[in-house]
Amino acid sequence: MSAPPSGTAAPALDYRAAGIDYDLIDPLKVAAQRSAAATAAQLHGHGFAEVAASRGESAYVIDVGPFYLASIVECLGSKALVADEMARLTGRSWYDAIAQDTIAMAVNDLITVGATPLVVQAYWAAGGSEWFADRERAQALVAGWQRACEACGIAWGGGETPALAGIVEAGRIDLAAACTGIVNPKSRLTLGERLGPGDAIVLVASSGIHANGLSLARKLVERLPGGWLSEVSPGLSYGAALLAPTVLYAPLTEALHRAGITPHYAANITGHGWRKLLRHPKPLRYRIDCVPEVPAVLRFIQQHAGLGDHEAYGTLNMGAGFALYVAAADAARTVEVAAACGLQALVAGHVEAGEKELRVEPLGLHYDAGELQLR
Amino acid sequence: MSAPPSGTAAPALDYRAAGIDYDLIDPLKVAAQRSAAATAAQLHGHGFAEVAASRGESAYVIDVGPFYLASIVECLGSKALVADEMARLTGRSWYDAIAQDTIAMAVNDLITVGATPLVVQAYWAAGGSEWFADRERAQALVAGWQRACEACGIAWGGGETPALAGIVEAGRIDLAAACTGIVNPKSRLTLGERLGPGDAIVLVASSGIHANGLSLARKLVERLPGGWLSEVSPGLSYGAALLAPTVLYAPLTEALHRAGITPHYAANITGHGWRKLLRHPKPLRYRIDCVPEVPAVLRFIQQHAGLGDHEAYGTLNMGAGFALYVAAADAARTVEVAAACGLQALVAGHVEAGEKELRVEPLGLHYDAGELQLR
Repeated sequence: MSAPPSGTAAPALDYRAAGIDYDLIDPLKVAAQRSAAATAAQLHGHGFAEVAASRGESAYVIDVGPFYLASIVECLGSKALVADEMARLTGRSWYDAIAQDTIAMAVNDLITVGATPLVVQAYWAAGGSEWFADRERAQALVAGWQRACEACGIAWGGGETPALAGIVEAGRIDLAAACTGIVNPKSRLTLGERLGPGDAIVLVASSGIHANGLSLARKLVERLPGGWLSEVSPGLSYGAALLAPTVLYAPLTEALHRAGITPHYAANITGHGWRKLLRHPKPLRYRIDCVPEVPAVLRFIQQHAGLGDHEAYGTLNMGAGFALYVAAADAARTVEVAAACGLQALVAGHVEAGEKELRVEPLGLHYDAGELQLR
Repeated sequence: MSAPPSGTAAPALDYRAAGIDYDLIDPLKVAAQRSAAATAAQLHGHGFAEVAASRGESAYVIDVGPFYLASIVECLGSKALVADEMARLTGRSWYDAIAQDTIAMAVNDLITVGATPLVVQAYWAAGGSEWFADRERAQALVAGWQRACEACGIAWGGGETPALAGIVEAGRIDLAAACTGIVNPKSRLTLGERLGPGDAIVLVASSGIHANGLSLARKLVERLPGGWLSEVSPGLSYGAALLAPTVLYAPLTEALHRAGITPHYAANITGHGWRKLLRHPKPLRYRIDCVPEVPAVLRFIQQHAGLGDHEAYGTLNMGAGFALYVAAADAARTVEVAAACGLQALVAGHVEAGEKELRVEPLGLHYDAGELQLR
C-alpha cells in the first residue's frame, strides 16, 4: 500500500465534485418509475402479468406462462473515455475490454433475478461516421463483444450503430447493451422471497473498478503527477488497471443452477458500492465478518482521492463484484462452484433478523437503509 | 404544392451532404453481423435455437419452445435536435412526441416479424445531470413514453437515465428503446416464408417524416429563409410538421391477428424509404399501382431539397409508413381493420414472379435489388 501523495491538501473527491448531481436526475427517475409501474396492467390484455417484486430490482420480470421473461438495457457509462485516453498514450485500442464491460453491465444485472441471458442487442452510438474509420478500434469492439457473448452463452442478436453528430460528441461513442433472458424453470426466480436470517453472504471477486466509479477515477487523474501512466503496482499503469474488463458472472449463476443451488437473492455491486448489499427491501441486517482483498487500483483510488473506508466501500466495489445470498448449507459449495468457474469467492458474512443495515465488522463500517435510495 | 424557392441554384441535398458517410460505417456493420451470426450456436447450450431467417430482418427471433422470442434495440436518431430548436422558438417542450417516436422506432420494427411487443426499456442518456433540471421537458418525455406504451399494450419495464458528460453533448440527450416481445402462437411468425406472387401490398399511412431522414431535413433548414418556422401548409411550421409523432403500428398488427389475418411479410418504411419494400431476400417483383397521398412536410422537403422522385421515394416514406404483404383475399379486409384502428391504408400493388425489383408505376420509378444493401 503506497502512501498518499505527499504535500497534497486537496479535499477528498466525491461524486458531486466529479460532476454528477443526482438531485437533478432523481425527480425524473421517480416520475419515470411511477409512470412505468402504471403500464404494468397492459400485460393483462395479452393474458400475462408482471412480477411486481421485480420493480426496483436490477431487471424487469414478467410471467409469460411456461417461464418468466427478464429484460434490461444498461449503459457502459464513461469508461470509454479512459480507453480513448489510453489509446492516445499507448497506441493500441482497448475496446475489446470495453465491449466486455458493456455486456457485463447488462448481463450481471439480468442474472440477479435468476435469469439465463439469451440474447444481447448492441447499442453503439458514435459521434459521427468517422468513429468507425479506425478499423483496429472497430474490430476490437466487435471481437470483444463476440467473446463476451460466447463467455456467457448468449446469442448476439444485432443492434444499432447510429452516427449521431450533434448529440454524441465527435470522436466519442455511447455504448449500451440490451439483454433478454428467461427464468426457467420458474423456481429459479431470485427476487428475495426466500431471503432471511441465517442466509450466508458469498462475495465474488471483482477484477478492479469494473464500470462504476469512473467519473471519480477520471477526475482523480488530474491530481496524479504521472497521469494515466502513474503506477498502481509495478509495471501496471493506472489507466491499464482501470481498463481491466468487468467480470462476467453469468457462467457462475448458470453453474450454480447445474449444481442444484438456487440463491435466495443476488446483488450486482455497481454504483453505490457495498450499499448495494442492502438492496432488498426486507428489513434485515447484513453482517460481514471478513472482506475480500482490495484490487490495487481501488486501493490506489481510495488513497489518492482521500476517501475514508465508509465512502470507499459505499461507492466502489472494493474487491466484491457480485454478492450471492444462499442458504447456509450451500455456502461452502457456492465458493467451490465459483472456483471451478475461475472466480475467487468467500463466505463473507450472514443475514440476521434486525433493523435494515449493513455492518462490515472488520472495518467498523455501518450503513443504514437510508443510505441507499434506489426505488 | 408550393413552388421551389425562386433563384436557388443550390445542388440537391443528399445524405452525404447531410454528413452521414455509410462507406465508413458499413465495414463495421458487416464485421459485426458476421460475429453476431457466429454466436447463434450459444443458444444450443440452453436447448434453444435462433430462427436463422430473422438475421438481417428488423428484429432478432429465437425459438424458446412454446413460442418465439423477439428483441431489438433502436435509436431515435437526430430528431431530438429538431425538438430542441422548436422548444427554443416556441417555448414549449416537444418531448412527448419525441418519446413516441423513440418507442415507434423499436416497436414498428419488432412487429414486422409477427411479434406482440410486451416490454420496453428506456435508454435516455443525457449530456449531463442538468438536462433533467428542465422539469417540463422531463415530464413531457415521461408522459409521452407512458402514453406510447399504453397505445401499444406494452409494459414499460424500466431503463437507464445516465448523465454522460464528455460523451453526449451538453444540453442534448441520446434516446433509444429496447423492446422484447413474443410470437404467439408460433404460426404468427412473419419472416416471408409465405411471401409470393399474387400477394397484395397494403401501404399504411405515415404521419409525416417519422424518425428517418432527419439529418437531411435539418440540413435543409439552412436553405429556408423562414427557417424552422417556414410554413409547410397554412398555420403549420416546418419544425412542427417534422415533429408529428411517428405512427405506432402495433395496434394494427394485433388487430389483424384478432381478425384472423396473418400477413405474409411486413416492412417498416424507415431509412432507405420505399427501397425497404425490397427488403425480403426472395427474388420477387413488387409492382405498385397507386401511391398514397404525400404528407405536406415530405412534399415540402422534396421540393426544397431539390430531390427527384427516385431519390425522394428511395429516401423518405412519402406517405407510406408501413407495408403489409397479405394474401390477395385478405387485402380489402386489411384496409378495413386499419381503418378501424384509425389508420388510412390502401391496396397499393401486388407481388409478381420475376427479377427482384420495385416498380412504382404511377411515378415511373424503378429500384432494383442492388439499391438496397441491408444484409
